[in-house]
Amino acid sequence: MKWHKLVLISVIGVLVLTGCDLTRTQQEEPQAVEGGALPQAAMDIAEERGLSPADISAALKTYIPSGQHDEYLMFLSGGHSGQLIVAGVPSMRILKNIAVFVPESWQGYGFGSWDSREVLEGGLVDGKENLMADTHHPALSETNGDYDGQYVFINDKANARVAVIDLRDFETKQIVKNPNVLSNHGATFVTPNTDYVIETTQYSTPLGWEYAPLDEYEEKYRGLITLWKFDREKGRLIQDESFSIELPPYWQDLCDAGKLVSDGWVFCGSFNTEMATGGVENGNPPFEAGVSQRDMDYLHIVNWEKAKEVFEAGKTETLNDMAVISMDTAVEEGILYLAPEPKSPHGADVTPGGEYVVVAGKLDPHVTIYSMEKIEQAIADENWEPDPFGIPVLDFDAVVEAQVELGLGPLHTQFDNDGHAYTSLFLDTAVAKWKLGPPYHDEGWELVETLPVQYNVGHLVSAEGDTVDPDGKWLVSLNKWSVDRFTGVGPLLPQNEQLIDISTNPMQLLYDMAMGVGEPHYAQMIKADKIDAWEVYPEVGWDPLNQTKSPYATAPGEERIERNGSEVEIFMTAVRSHFTPEIIEVKKGDHVTWHITNIETAVDATHGLQIPAYNVSLSMEPGEVSSIDFVADRDGTFAWYCTEFCSALHLEMMGYLLVEE
Amino acid sequence: MKWHKLVLISVIGVLVLTGCDLTRTQQEEPQAVEGGALPQAAMDIAEERGLSPADISAALKTYIPSGQHDEYLMFLSGGHSGQLIVAGVPSMRILKNIAVFVPESWQGYGFGSWDSREVLEGGLVDGKENLMADTHHPALSETNGDYDGQYVFINDKANARVAVIDLRDFETKQIVKNPNVLSNHGATFVTPNTDYVIETTQYSTPLGWEYAPLDEYEEKYRGLITLWKFDREKGRLIQDESFSIELPPYWQDLCDAGKLVSDGWVFCGSFNTEMATGGVENGNPPFEAGVSQRDMDYLHIVNWEKAKEVFEAGKTETLNDMAVISMDTAVEEGILYLAPEPKSPHGADVTPGGEYVVVAGKLDPHVTIYSMEKIEQAIADENWEPDPFGIPVLDFDAVVEAQVELGLGPLHTQFDNDGHAYTSLFLDTAVAKWKLGPPYHDEGWELVETLPVQYNVGHLVSAEGDTVDPDGKWLVSLNKWSVDRFTGVGPLLPQNEQLIDISTNPMQLLYDMAMGVGEPHYAQMIKADKIDAWEVYPEVGWDPLNQTKSPYATAPGEERIERNGSEVEIFMTAVRSHFTPEIIEVKKGDHVTWHITNIETAVDATHGLQIPAYNVSLSMEPGEVSSIDFVADRDGTFAWYCTEFCSALHLEMMGYLLVEE
Repeated sequence: MKWHKLVLISVIGVLVLTGCDLTRTQQEEPQAVEGGALPQAAMDIAEERGLSPADISAALKTYIPSGQHDEYLMFLSGGHSGQLIVAGVPSMRILKNIAVFVPESWQGYGFGSWDSREVLEGGLVDGKENLMADTHHPALSETNGDYDGQYVFINDKANARVAVIDLRDFETKQIVKNPNVLSNHGATFVTPNTDYVIETTQYSTPLGWEYAPLDEYEEKYRGLITLWKFDREKGRLIQDESFSIELPPYWQDLCDAGKLVSDGWVFCGSFNTEMATGGVENGNPPFEAGVSQRDMDYLHIVNWEKAKEVFEAGKTETLNDMAVISMDTAVEEGILYLAPEPKSPHGADVTPGGEYVVVAGKLDPHVTIYSMEKIEQAIADENWEPDPFGIPVLDFDAVVEAQVELGLGPLHTQFDNDGHAYTSLFLDTAVAKWKLGPPYHDEGWELVETLPVQYNVGHLVSAEGDTVDPDGKWLVSLNKWSVDRFTGVGPLLPQNEQLIDISTNPMQLLYDMAMGVGEPHYAQMIKADKIDAWEVYPEVGWDPLNQTKSPYATAPGEERIERNGSEVEIFMTAVRSHFTPEIIEVKKGDHVTWHITNIETAVDATHGLQIPAYNVSLSMEPGEVSSIDFVADRDGTFAWYCTEFCSALHLEMMGYLLVEE
Repeated sequence: MKWHKLVLISVIGVLVLTGCDLTRTQQEEPQAVEGGALPQAAMDIAEERGLSPADISAALKTYIPSGQHDEYLMFLSGGHSGQLIVAGVPSMRILKNIAVFVPESWQGYGFGSWDSREVLEGGLVDGKENLMADTHHPALSETNGDYDGQYVFINDKANARVAVIDLRDFETKQIVKNPNVLSNHGATFVTPNTDYVIETTQYSTPLGWEYAPLDEYEEKYRGLITLWKFDREKGRLIQDESFSIELPPYWQDLCDAGKLVSDGWVFCGSFNTEMATGGVENGNPPFEAGVSQRDMDYLHIVNWEKAKEVFEAGKTETLNDMAVISMDTAVEEGILYLAPEPKSPHGADVTPGGEYVVVAGKLDPHVTIYSMEKIEQAIADENWEPDPFGIPVLDFDAVVEAQVELGLGPLHTQFDNDGHAYTSLFLDTAVAKWKLGPPYHDEGWELVETLPVQYNVGHLVSAEGDTVDPDGKWLVSLNKWSVDRFTGVGPLLPQNEQLIDISTNPMQLLYDMAMGVGEPHYAQMIKADKIDAWEVYPEVGWDPLNQTKSPYATAPGEERIERNGSEVEIFMTAVRSHFTPEIIEVKKGDHVTWHITNIETAVDATHGLQIPAYNVSLSMEPGEVSSIDFVADRDGTFAWYCTEFCSALHLEMMGYLLVEE
């Protein structure tokens, strides 16, 4: 390979721009521009393309020359794709669409491999396969409230599941199903040291989603906040060490964990404190109206440190193998409080220092800022009234620090390194930048500027913008509609993730990223150099599910086919450009177990395998062992092959499965 | 919505660059730059980022300002993702990953909807579900040899299937399974008026993939070229009007249809004319060596016009409901010829005027150019020797016009509008530009320049580069390895699709596009304005599978639930922000049929639906009707909801399914 030719390309580029006739044998280092005017050739391009000075600066800020890397990685939920999307910032290129809840053939996920089968089986619902999902909120693992680059978690809103992805290989290692609810939304969020992953219900059902008519809603329907214990060493959520807290059947929405001065607490917005049950077909208000009647909903304020003590003290009930702290216990033990919040809020976001919770009430033009200090004082003062379930509702005026009018439809807030907050305005289809008050600014709590976005921004994300130490760079507006932004590709349009430079004043819109592989709802952005991903697996013969040497690893020379009656077990190796063995002869009805070790150690030397008619698709990264098994229930001649274009003789990397009647 | 705010953004951008303190109320049109130096602010950005003049020109050539559109659309196969990827050029943004052979939750494809179920059932193999695939070669529909923007076809190499995608809505409408082979590769390619879609076998098996031991390879294993008749009005491949031609068990590779002077012919490369059968485990040469022994393989030259006459005359056998012209008949009727081609070629590409076929022999440093005129003369002269199957092998020297030495590992060739060809060099990891001879250039058949790419280019694509009228713009190098090009995302790396400007001399490498959603093998690039995609469906109540009004369309006011014993049929509407009806009450065991009409007419007003535990995921674009049915086999309370963030009250757009024991 001729990596060094890149230099040449840049030189050629220079020649194009200068019109010089230097021959290619005279190689020179590409020269960065220095003070003075840009080359006339660049001017000509800009003029020909009708680029404005703003366009030119945007182009230059976002362009990554070949071989250079992005500064940040952004993890975006895929929405109802059920996956997790990884993109580079500022280039906004999609680097990987990680298969999480839904099978994905390219990654060999859910098409026979034992490791993906085990992961997906963790997500069975009612014991049955359920291969669709709706991922919403990725959460990067944290140490002391800052991203540590080790793991990322994500929820499935549609079925109340949580997944764990290991950032050494960017693969999904675990899916857990919440045994008591079928819907989550305030998930996933982590506590500052990733001791727990938070999952909170959205649409209430009876716990265990048992049948109950809607006229028993207040009595039988419930919400739930679950704290999944994370074992960082094992890379697994541990159900036995996890617990839930029963909540009223208000529809809990997004959450955020407290940090620093608010560490030990978690905050969740809610809507439908009206406890409306819809039924427009029977003359009732439709859900959209029924759940939007009250001027105030409730911010849920949960003391998870206290809840942990209560759980450890055994003051729980066990429901479907999960420990649950009842609402009564939660009230008695000082675990659960509410505070009024202006109507139907979406985001509840904790400031970098942990002093405040910013609530964006989507049907109210303000953000409302709650003070942790005031919340603790109100609790100490018992300055509350009970809600219908006996939960203390803290006095609004006693806990609110400020309200800032931003515009229509505020949803979600991120932060920078200079005491500013950035809130998405769905109805105004804009991003509002505003100033925090003390200790960030002596004079604060005021709007600074508003930048229109295209169109209908839901969430937004800034660089490390929800950690204790935001970076004050790049902000991405996750717009729900794109309308006219991209070339038409039919009635299902891509979303538009817009990159904004927040290091300038005012902010500058830089780039429209088309999102044609899912509908991201939420994202987190981490400095790329914080992630230390493996280039290849640490050892040839690796089991990626358990991150250890596989018992089925096969060394060159040890390839074999073992037969025991109708049991056939194959130990195979794969290397450019052949499998060993190549010919598999079995009888119809044989149970075939097939282990393949990719014995490559070179970066990018991935091999794949597909077996026609048998629904098998594997991707084996360098060093990986993949195992499948199936009953050879169809006789015939089946040509299987490597599906990754691995070498010039890639097409020749194949074999036959011969199934004799 | 405030579309007009874009103007404002650009103005702000100008202010940033000029340092001017103009307030935002003074709106001005953004000004394109004019002759003279670029703004100093742009210079400063370039200097700070270390951009070379070549980088700057690349950034300016590829940047698309917000609201402007790409010039071309590129259709890339997804490889073992089983899908088809649509990207804009020159921005290289992924606009849509179209679900083809593999279920995809975001598009509601393969998760309950009747239309996707019907399409996927067309792809059953041995009557069983087979939901993995390996898409390789998309083919845009053509009229008179030029893309017409109506349809795109793609093959599944792993299971020998072909799919039809309608470019009015960019959705898959049909999958057909070849009943006689399990592997294809020379697929899909269209005849110049899309009368037929060509599908050719790669790995030979007995026809119908019946069992036969490998020592009966020469006798029983066969290849097949199939011409699938396409009915443009219906948008469907018609098996009854399609036919196959039996081929020797050489592994046929890529094909191309003749055009203009070669119209009526199709050309396919091949390898493994050695008829090696592998078995390294038994001391045989591994496939990679066994199939690479001979210096020459065979270009297959097929007269499909003649074959069509023979098919229409009934001189066929019927094998598994498909008409097959036997090899003997094909020879007798002058349908099938071979010509020697240097070893293990990959591409066989017809020049824009149809005069030549360019064969890239991947183990030979030359491209070999065959003349259609000379082929016809050699056939007239009977200047041939028979191969072991009695097929005429035309004399090499009699049919070859020229050979051009390009470098190591030539694979695939595209063309421009100025008589140049561009050939990928896998081993040299470069793109070679070379000059065609007469009638394109009096003095031709010579290498012009070589541009290194990063790394290991497989196929390449230029703008309309395989039509009768190439555009001479953008070329994309589909590289199989990216190695160090992108931020690390674990051992499975994205591919690198590199954009090259071929309108300059020399060529300029512009951009590295990360491909993290599949492994494209082949692509076609069409002028975007040739496609007239629908923004919304033509009528509310649309059936997208049959592109007509749906019998299940439900108008507002006509929503209802009909019950007949255990049969429950729901006629529902969806509109921002509610479904009608909202509450579905059934008994356990009821068979539920559920029709939803998205009654929106606004662009981008898509609604989704997921039903927890029941594995249902739908995407309903504006006007679309989607239907599902299932047995309510689990009692309980299930909250279903709209999965597309459609409005500020999107979270409120939900309902309950109550299944009583």
